Amino acid sequence: MRLKNKPWALPLIEANPQYVVTEPAKLRGKWDERFTTKQPLLIEIGMGKGRFITEMARRDPKHNYVGIEVQTTATGIALKKQLELKLPNLQLVSGDGNDLTEMFAPAEVAGIFLNFSDPWPKKRHAKRRLTYQTFLKQYQQVMQKDGTLEFKTDNRGLFEYSLTSMNNYGMVFDQVWLDLHDSPEAVDNVMTEYEEKFSQKGQPIFKLAAHFTS
Amino acid sequence: MRLKNKPWALPLIEANPQYVVTEPAKLRGKWDERFTTKQPLLIEIGMGKGRFITEMARRDPKHNYVGIEVQTTATGIALKKQLELKLPNLQLVSGDGNDLTEMFAPAEVAGIFLNFSDPWPKKRHAKRRLTYQTFLKQYQQVMQKDGTLEFKTDNRGLFEYSLTSMNNYGMVFDQVWLDLHDSPEAVDNVMTEYEEKFSQKGQPIFKLAAHFTS
Ligand SMILES: C[S@@+](CC[C@H](N)C(=O)[O-])C[C@H]1O[C@@H](n2cnc3c(N)ncnc32)[C@H](O)[C@@H]1O
Ligand SMILES: C[S@@+](CC[C@H](N)C(=O)[O-])C[C@H]1O[C@@H](n2cnc3c(N)ncnc32)[C@H](O)[C@@H]1O
Repeated sequence: MRLKNKPWALPLIEANPQYVVTEPAKLRGKWDERFTTKQPLLIEIGMGKGRFITEMARRDPKHNYVGIEVQTTATGIALKKQLELKLPNLQLVSGDGNDLTEMFAPAEVAGIFLNFSDPWPKKRHAKRRLTYQTFLKQYQQVMQKDGTLEFKTDNRGLFEYSLTSMNNYGMVFDQVWLDLHDSPEAVDNVMTEYEEKFSQKGQPIFKLAAHFTS
Repeated sequence: MRLKNKPWALPLIEANPQYVVTEPAKLRGKWDERFTTKQPLLIEIGMGKGRFITEMARRDPKHNYVGIEVQTTATGIALKKQLELKLPNLQLVSGDGNDLTEMFAPAEVAGIFLNFSDPWPKKRHAKRRLTYQTFLKQYQQVMQKDGTLEFKTDNRGLFEYSLTSMNNYGMVFDQVWLDLHDSPEAVDNVMTEYEEKFSQKGQPIFKLAAHFTS
């Protein structure tokens, strides 16, 4: 998804450094300082307009949340939500989540969300998929031992690929959903923007929850 | 699937011991003797009326095939096909495939097919699912190191369960299909009776190919 560039976004981000981090590497190992409460940190890579992470942070004050997004306009839209809600346990990162190990120290992260990540359907682009082994390695490095990766998508090809990739990497599956919205867990599910759009079209939503063994 | 009992089935089976094995434990370690050619052995557990295994054996003369089925009537129907085709690389087993280790010696089997296995949807029946860990252990014991398990089903709950169960057992996924008939591999796919029925209703067919690491 490429959003049309909104000229108001960058100035809004720059005017609100209390909510948006633009140099995340500087916080490596000390993300706790950005929050009022020291508690486990959950992050989303590619939060888009931030609907998911904002709602998660609102419902679940017992975790700190960081939403990372590379598109300034999307981050700007997420920031508008946060300027209304002023959630003390939510921080946004305007930047590239391509190398998490520069952003987080080992075991600094308690859990990772990937929601409707870009599918990169062409085989020669497989390395760009956020469930490619090089990314999994980064997740493993920044996550606590018992940390969970939760991945949702509507994209069949990406989900087929990710099941195989995560299995081959040695990740342990906690649960698989092949139609999340037709499952008991649908009640507590927090929808993303993409999820709402695709599920309204009648497409099944796939989800995988998994963890690393070390 | 419980078929209506056909009175002709048992006599037909008993009249054709060259094609149907009724005491498979006696062949443990010497299945080769039942075939004209010594070559890798592939088996299907719960072959039903035998459409899949018969067509596989016909297309692929370079493997020996054994189809196992507990319902006499279903085995009788499969036998009728074999009496027409007289495939030298196909043997049927009229019996229970619940304990493969009694039927096959270690590494006697090169590959296993599970097609549209009974889903046993109730949680308290999970142990009866053919992808429950005790069954996986048996498959591992009778299969060669590089042997592959191929599992197809239309049943979402069973497939979700099986992905998790096989992953948790430590199996390595080769490929996952969430809509087999809408994939490049559909061309070579040999359909089972159930597969034809459910795919005609428009349901996606799920498939997993996986192997053990030892
Ligand atoms: C398909 S959208 C999904 C947005 C949102 N998660 C949802 O489900 O509605 C993928 C998002 O990931 C962002 N993205 C892709 N690669 C990224 C990266 N390396 N770092 C941060 N964000 C990234 C894109 O800019 C885009 O907003
Ligand atoms: C749902 S049917 C599917 C038949 C066929 N594989 C197909 O795809 O059309 C499942 C079959 O497995 C057989 N079956 C179940 N448990 C079995 C066991 N322990 N040993 C042998 N056959 C079994 C049943 O009798 C039934 O014919």
